[in-house]
Amino acid sequence: MKAHLDCIPCFQRQALQASRFVTNDEVIHEKILRKVIAELAKLDWQKSPPELARVVHAIVKKETKEKDPYKKVKKKYNDIALNLYSSLQDMVENSDKPLLTAVKLAIAGNVIDFGVKSNFDLNSTITEVLEKTLKINNYNELVQALKQAKSISYILDNTGEIVFDKLLLETISDKYKIDKIQFAVKGAPILNDATQDDAKYVGLDKFPNVEFIKVNVGIEGSGLERWGEEFLEIVRKSDIIISKGQGNYEALSNQKNIFFLLMAKCPVIATDLGVEIGDIILKKT
Amino acid sequence: MKAHLDCIPCFQRQALQASRFVTNDEVIHEKILRKVIAELAKLDWQKSPPELARVVHAIVKKETKEKDPYKKVKKKYNDIALNLYSSLQDMVENSDKPLLTAVKLAIAGNVIDFGVKSNFDLNSTITEVLEKTLKINNYNELVQALKQAKSISYILDNTGEIVFDKLLLETISDKYKIDKIQFAVKGAPILNDATQDDAKYVGLDKFPNVEFIKVNVGIEGSGLERWGEEFLEIVRKSDIIISKGQGNYEALSNQKNIFFLLMAKCPVIATDLGVEIGDIILKKT
Repeated sequence: MKAHLDCIPCFQRQALQASRFVTNDEVIHEKILRKVIAELAKLDWQKSPPELARVVHAIVKKETKEKDPYKKVKKKYNDIALNLYSSLQDMVENSDKPLLTAVKLAIAGNVIDFGVKSNFDLNSTITEVLEKTLKINNYNELVQALKQAKSISYILDNTGEIVFDKLLLETISDKYKIDKIQFAVKGAPILNDATQDDAKYVGLDKFPNVEFIKVNVGIEGSGLERWGEEFLEIVRKSDIIISKGQGNYEALSNQKNIFFLLMAKCPVIATDLGVEIGDIILKKT
Repeated sequence: MKAHLDCIPCFQRQALQASRFVTNDEVIHEKILRKVIAELAKLDWQKSPPELARVVHAIVKKETKEKDPYKKVKKKYNDIALNLYSSLQDMVENSDKPLLTAVKLAIAGNVIDFGVKSNFDLNSTITEVLEKTLKINNYNELVQALKQAKSISYILDNTGEIVFDKLLLETISDKYKIDKIQFAVKGAPILNDATQDDAKYVGLDKFPNVEFIKVNVGIEGSGLERWGEEFLEIVRKSDIIISKGQGNYEALSNQKNIFFLLMAKCPVIATDLGVEIGDIILKKT
């Protein structure tokens, strides 16, 4: 998916927010915003949003001298979600359709995204999402695929959200014979996206036969490009591929046979999917 | 008030929206956004938001070859508000405090602002605002001033909103002896701000002894600078000055003895006023 013109001011908002997570110095904020604008002005806007985001966030990291500007907010939302965990488990256990509830909760967790908005309300999102129906609904296809699957590649998105993913995978593991999970994580910090450390912090490494695949974030050696053959070959070794969130959708929407779980949070994604902002999606390509 | 860093991406969003009001051609949209970015990169961001907005909207006008990109949407919201007029009158007449209700409605009308957001819900805003209390509340000072006033300078903001201003001025005129009104209007189209034509379209010229003062929008000969001595001298001839909306607040907040009626709609203004987004304000400086 190529970037939309609306992404250009949105990246600048992201850069300001990330800068403010690190420092209160407005001189540095302005310097970063001016550098971001100068770089964006040079770039080809036909690239995908994640490619452009790399350039933007590399400037923030360089100018703030902080390789993980979202560090505190990432830990905060992992902890918030971990504290919610037992009540989320209750929601699944007390549900008539535990798997569907776990799927919806995993999509609700996708609201924890500092790439899209500057603020969100996690608790009210959980309540709202449970009442919503999937706007694009390939749930039955997912259930059919799970019946025959032994392995899953699960492409993670944000910290905090990954706690909801853990619950979904536990719910799946209770019912189906999954004996291997490959988690795709970011190979270095970018935005509030989950790295291997974040995944381990919330206990995703406790599933049997877990492997981590590192995804490139524009930093040399950080990992494999999501849209590259090598990455796709590895994830395709699993029987099912589940991809979370907008960024992974932007990178992988042209690939066949992936289950995309996300909330449409910006007009660009909503338009691409033909849905409204706030709609919840389980789309199989 | 000087611009905030958050204004910089916001101006780009404005430019995209204005361009899309005129044409669906994405090549032109991108050209405009790139020019806006190039100009913003050159400018001193210590200027006030209205000064920066001029540069941005001049680019939109030049590249779309349309001197009033908001023309259709301005007429649309004037008509929507005119259609609401008799129900708004009923709200005032049936109220225990007709003047306070008219003040609140005039603030509710301030939500019709394409400078701040891309969408808003007028009807639900009216309902919500009537239930709110003024977060900064110099209503009693306004009432005291009206008791002794014979003339008002009323600095208008947006089209559509000016219909709500008309109702406020009618409510004031029913109770107090106002025999002259000076309306400050924009001297040429910018954003969805009201010009003299817009003011006449909704019938603001029907009050006795109306005069129009044209405010400069960065186009030569369009009028007087709101922050200039000449403009201030003219409006200060009236016994009361009422200023509507964020833009006028940004331009005039350092002036004494002005009643500012507005809704805080963006984080920059909300922070300056020490209130939350969505709060309604009647502030006397």
